[in-house]
Amino acid sequence: MKNYTHILLAVDFSDHTDPIAERARDLADKSQAKISLLHVVDNLPIVDTVNGPIIPYEIDLTEQLMESAKLRLEKLAERFKIPENNRFLELGSPKIEIVRIAEENAVDLIVVGSHGRHGLALLLGSTANGVLHHAKCDVLAVRIKDE
Amino acid sequence: MKNYTHILLAVDFSDHTDPIAERARDLADKSQAKISLLHVVDNLPIVDTVNGPIIPYEIDLTEQLMESAKLRLEKLAERFKIPENNRFLELGSPKIEIVRIAEENAVDLIVVGSHGRHGLALLLGSTANGVLHHAKCDVLAVRIKDE
Repeated sequence: MKNYTHILLAVDFSDHTDPIAERARDLADKSQAKISLLHVVDNLPIVDTVNGPIIPYEIDLTEQLMESAKLRLEKLAERFKIPENNRFLELGSPKIEIVRIAEENAVDLIVVGSHGRHGLALLLGSTANGVLHHAKCDVLAVRIKDE
Repeated sequence: MKNYTHILLAVDFSDHTDPIAERARDLADKSQAKISLLHVVDNLPIVDTVNGPIIPYEIDLTEQLMESAKLRLEKLAERFKIPENNRFLELGSPKIEIVRIAEENAVDLIVVGSHGRHGLALLLGSTANGVLHHAKCDVLAVRIKDE
C-alpha cells in the first residue's frame, strides 16, 4: 500500500478548523507526507440591483478579506507546522480552487470539513460534496459536530 | 489527536475493491483501529409492468445474490484479515445501510470508493455522496481511477 505523499488541508476558518487540521497533521505524520494548507476567499459578486455592480466597493472588500485571511492562514500554518512554501490563499469558488490546487501540486489526499444537513450547514456542506465529485484524488471529509 | 478506533470498509465488489481495502487496512494498522467489512446487496424491486411484482422470482434472485455476496465477502475478509465477527452483509439501500451499520457499531471512519462522473460512475458515485451527507462520522472517499 503506497502511503499518501502530499496532503492538502482545506480550511474555512470556522470554529471547527482545529480538529480538521489536527486530523490532517496526524495523517501526514503517520504517512510521512508533505502537508499543504489552503484557504479560498469566496468571490461573491456584490451587485447593486438598481445601479449594477459596484466595482470599487467590491475590490476594496475583497482586498480586506484577502488581507485578513492571509493573517489567519499564517497563524494556523505556524501552529500546525506547515512550511511557508506550502500555504495557498486563493480567491474564487472553494470547490473549484481546492480541486485545482490539488491537481497542480500532485496532492493525493484532500482533507476538508463536512457539516450535517441543518441550516447553514447545507451551504457549507456543498464544498465537501463538490470536492468529492471533482477531485481526482482521495478525499477525507472530517465530520464537524453540529451544535 | 485521537486515533480512529473503528474503521468500516464498505465494498461493492467492483474491480476496484482491492486498492480501497488496502487503504482501509493500512489506516487501521496505522491507527491501531478495529476494522469491519460491509457489503450491501442492493434491494432493487423487480417489477413486471403488465402483471405487477413477480414475488417468487424476486425472492429467489435475492437469495442467490445474498449467497454469492456472502462467499465474496468471506474471501475478501480472509485476504485482509478482517475477523469473522466484524463482517456485515446487508440487504437494502447501500448508503442507508452503510450509515446505519456505522452508527450501530460506533464506527469513526467509513472508507468507500468514489467514482468520477462518467456513465455508470454517476450512479455508483451516489453512494459515496449519500454516505458523506448522512454519516455522523468521518468519511474517506478513495478515488477509483476510471478507465
